[in-house]
Parts: sequence; structure tokens; C-alpha cells
Amino acid sequence: MPVRPSDIELAHRLADAAGAVIRPYFRRPAGLEMKADRSPVTRADREAEEAMRRILDAERSGDGIVGEEHGTKDGVTGRQWVLDPIDGTRSFTAGRAIFGTLIALVEDGWPVLGVIDQPVQRERWLGVAGRPTLFNGAPAATRACPALEGAIVATTSPHLFDDGDVPHYLALVAAASGGAARQGPVYGGDCYNYGLLASGFLDIVCESGLKLYDFAALAPIVEGAGGRMCDWNGDPLTADSAGHVLAIGDPARTDEVLEALRNTGHDHHH
Amino acid sequence: MPVRPSDIELAHRLADAAGAVIRPYFRRPAGLEMKADRSPVTRADREAEEAMRRILDAERSGDGIVGEEHGTKDGVTGRQWVLDPIDGTRSFTAGRAIFGTLIALVEDGWPVLGVIDQPVQRERWLGVAGRPTLFNGAPAATRACPALEGAIVATTSPHLFDDGDVPHYLALVAAASGGAARQGPVYGGDCYNYGLLASGFLDIVCESGLKLYDFAALAPIVEGAGGRMCDWNGDPLTADSAGHVLAIGDPARTDEVLEALRNTGHDHHH
Repeated sequence: MPVRPSDIELAHRLADAAGAVIRPYFRRPAGLEMKADRSPVTRADREAEEAMRRILDAERSGDGIVGEEHGTKDGVTGRQWVLDPIDGTRSFTAGRAIFGTLIALVEDGWPVLGVIDQPVQRERWLGVAGRPTLFNGAPAATRACPALEGAIVATTSPHLFDDGDVPHYLALVAAASGGAARQGPVYGGDCYNYGLLASGFLDIVCESGLKLYDFAALAPIVEGAGGRMCDWNGDPLTADSAGHVLAIGDPARTDEVLEALRNTGHDHHH
Repeated sequence: MPVRPSDIELAHRLADAAGAVIRPYFRRPAGLEMKADRSPVTRADREAEEAMRRILDAERSGDGIVGEEHGTKDGVTGRQWVLDPIDGTRSFTAGRAIFGTLIALVEDGWPVLGVIDQPVQRERWLGVAGRPTLFNGAPAATRACPALEGAIVATTSPHLFDDGDVPHYLALVAAASGGAARQGPVYGGDCYNYGLLASGFLDIVCESGLKLYDFAALAPIVEGAGGRMCDWNGDPLTADSAGHVLAIGDPARTDEVLEALRNTGHDHHH
């Protein structure tokens, strides 16, 4: 079943509902608490997911829900709403308005609709399979990237890479920076970087450890803006992949990016 | 000569003038160009500094000026205005509104007034020696940090550390995160992180390679909010220091922070 206008309208209402919950908690330290795994998460996170689930339970009771905070609800329609109310909790708790609410509609395992919503700056990217990505209602497009050297790479944190990932990531950074250390990647940003790539302000996002609810919303946005999302081998992302995610604004650079990631120097030393 | 009301009023007008230049260039890719050293810098950067210099030349012709873009003008009053129109050019070019305009007034080598202005989000921190720091006109204060373990550390980019710095930085990160890798630092942010620390949303900023025009504006803001700025040995920052900068929101944690930075394990292995 293709994405219907009512799905898009619903996705906007979900984002509106989440944002209304999140905004009053931003920069209000009393709202902070810790989960058992010590990752910072806020009442905003839980309550925003509850607000979205209430709407889905009422209006799409047959659809499944996958939520970061409140787990999975099985559905009967083959459709799932994948929700991450605050992607970028570290930026949220630090008072930086570069986190986002992620909403995806997944059909038969394939994300067909995605939203990145930044509720404080009131910025919203919407991607729908087969349609141009919209930023606050206007078409968004990735930019051309004439060469890998000079491409602007972004990633959230170097600590999110496993030890085995690091040489590959650094090889990509070296190829993009052309040896100019100060020309390094843009750090921080979580989902927000994928939106900026879709709007033509970043060339590559390279990350590891992402889960389904992290990237399901991103793929329709990046691809509807003319970019490409894949894993570090160039294969399509799946819920079972190891979370090695690439977003490439200019698909013409894909082979060079994959080659740079492979070329760690360890295989070819003399 | 102490800071006068007219100095504060002037600092606000300098920030207003820079912001008026910068805002139209934000997320306008046609405004981007490269300097010879390949660091991204924009027409906004140069024109914003020119706008501030015009005001200073007209109204404070005897004061010196140190600007990142247009160099140093000697003065005769012992006072210098230190200007960095866009600190965080990588965030600026990536479309992230977490860069800032830095304005400092330095008297006899000592920063007595500092401004961090975020012109897109219209956020402004003002610090004046001996007075409480203000955020958009309201008092700002750092937060208590009961223990180093659990402190939120921020830094702009791991690539800004020299090889010799890295073990010390990572030792601080390990002490703050208590071994929880996902509890890592907040990355990206440049001057904006110091403002957020002054407002109580971050505990420690640890950086290297900062220059006078990077940190002169930050010290009055951090210290007027109850925090402390020093180098990695705990010594006061000077224009000649190696740019190893610490901002600590809760000064009671200073000794633990310095100890963690020293304790790389290399001096004490068995």
C-alpha cells in the first residue's frame, strides 16, 4: 500500500504532538533523569512517545509501533510506525537545539515515510518514497560534491565507533580532508546532520551503531533529496545490519567513499 | 580603567552589527568561499568584522583591535577589542546555529568583558569582570557538579588535539564517563559550549589549540557565571599559553579535573 495523504497528515500531527511535549522541557534541568544504562534521557522523551502512541492507538490501531522508550506493539497491517522522540539526547541535555524527533512509517520492512523534526527551531524534514523531500514545506536537495577531497563529513561522536571501525572511519576522514587536519569532520548532531545533508549543507554522514529507530526515518529524507543511504559495504540498510550507516549527498561519490573506508593502509603496507 | 556602561552598550552594538551581517549568509551556500589554508570561511566572517571595526574606528579610535580576519591595529589606551566574527565556521557552513560571534575587551592583557552572540537563535551571553554573567539579559549561573564521574564534558573536535594531548584528554573523558562508553562527551559547539556551561547545561569544556581571540571573550562569561577557566595545569590563561583551555562549571571539581588530565596511566604502569 503506497503512502497516502492521510499518512503524511498523520506524521505531521505526530511530530506536532511530540514537539509540544518536548519544547517546555528544553533547557529545564529539573526534567532530567537517568535511565539504568546511564544514558541521559528525559521525561520529555517518554512523554513525547506516549503522546504519539495515543494518537496511533486511536487512529491506527491495526498498525504496529516500534518505540525507543516504550517498546514494540505488534500490528496486523504490515505497517509499523517507528518512533524516536529525542534522537540526540546528549545535545538535548546540553541545551543544544540540534536534536530531533524521528518518525518513520515502515511497510513490509521498508521505510516509506520519514520525519526529522527539530521542535525548538521549528524545523521539519519530510521524506516520502518516490517524492521530493520537503524542509518546512519547501523542496530540499542535496548538493553536488565534485570530489571526495574537500567533502564535508559529519558524525556524532568518535566514541560511537568500535575499535575495529576506527581505522576505516579515519581513512575516510583523511581522504576527505586531503591531509589538512583542521579541515576535519563536523562533530555532534545526530539525526540533524542527515537533515542538513538533505538540504545541501553536508556531503557525507558516516556513523556506526545505529538502530532501526535511528535510521528508518532518515532514508526517505536523504533519498528523496537526491542522496543515497547504505551501509559501509554499499549494501542497503536493513534492521539486521550492524548499523554501519553512510549517507552520501552526491551518489556519484559512492564508490570513492566505499573505497576510502576500505583503504586503511593495513592491507597495503610495504 | 574599569568597564564602563558605555563599554557594555558598545559591545551590544558590535554584536548587533555582526549579527545583522551574518544572518542573511546563514544557509546560503553561494556566500561560501575558501581561504588559502582551506579552512572554510565566509564573506559573512570578513564583512561582520568590517562592520564591527567601522564602529570601533569611529567611536574608539584610540583602542587597539585584534581581529581574526583583518589583523591587529595598535592602540594608545591599553585597551584592545578582540573580535572573532564567526567562531565555529564549520558549524556555520554546515547550517548549524551553534556558532558564535566573540567580542572581548582586554585591558592591559586581561579580558574584562566578553560576549558570545548566536545571531540566528538570537542568544547572547555577556560577561563583565566582577559582575554576574547575563544570558539574554537574565543572570546565568553554572550548575553544581557533585562528582567528576557523571560530569558532562564537551569539546569541539578530537582532531584539534595534538597527539601528545590525546591521552590526557581521553583520561579526563574516562574519569567523567566512569567507563560507560555511551556516556561520552558532547562534540561540536565551539564557543557555544562555553555559553551553555555558563548557563548550567555542561560541566566541563576541554580544548586545545585555542588562540587569544578564541578564549578572551569566554573567560569573563564563564567566571561571571561562577565557573573557572584555566589551562590544563590549572594556571591562568594568557595570550602566550599553548591554548590548552579548561572551563569548569563547578570550581570545586578543579583539582579532580587536573588530576584526571595528568593520570594517563603511562607514568604509573606496573
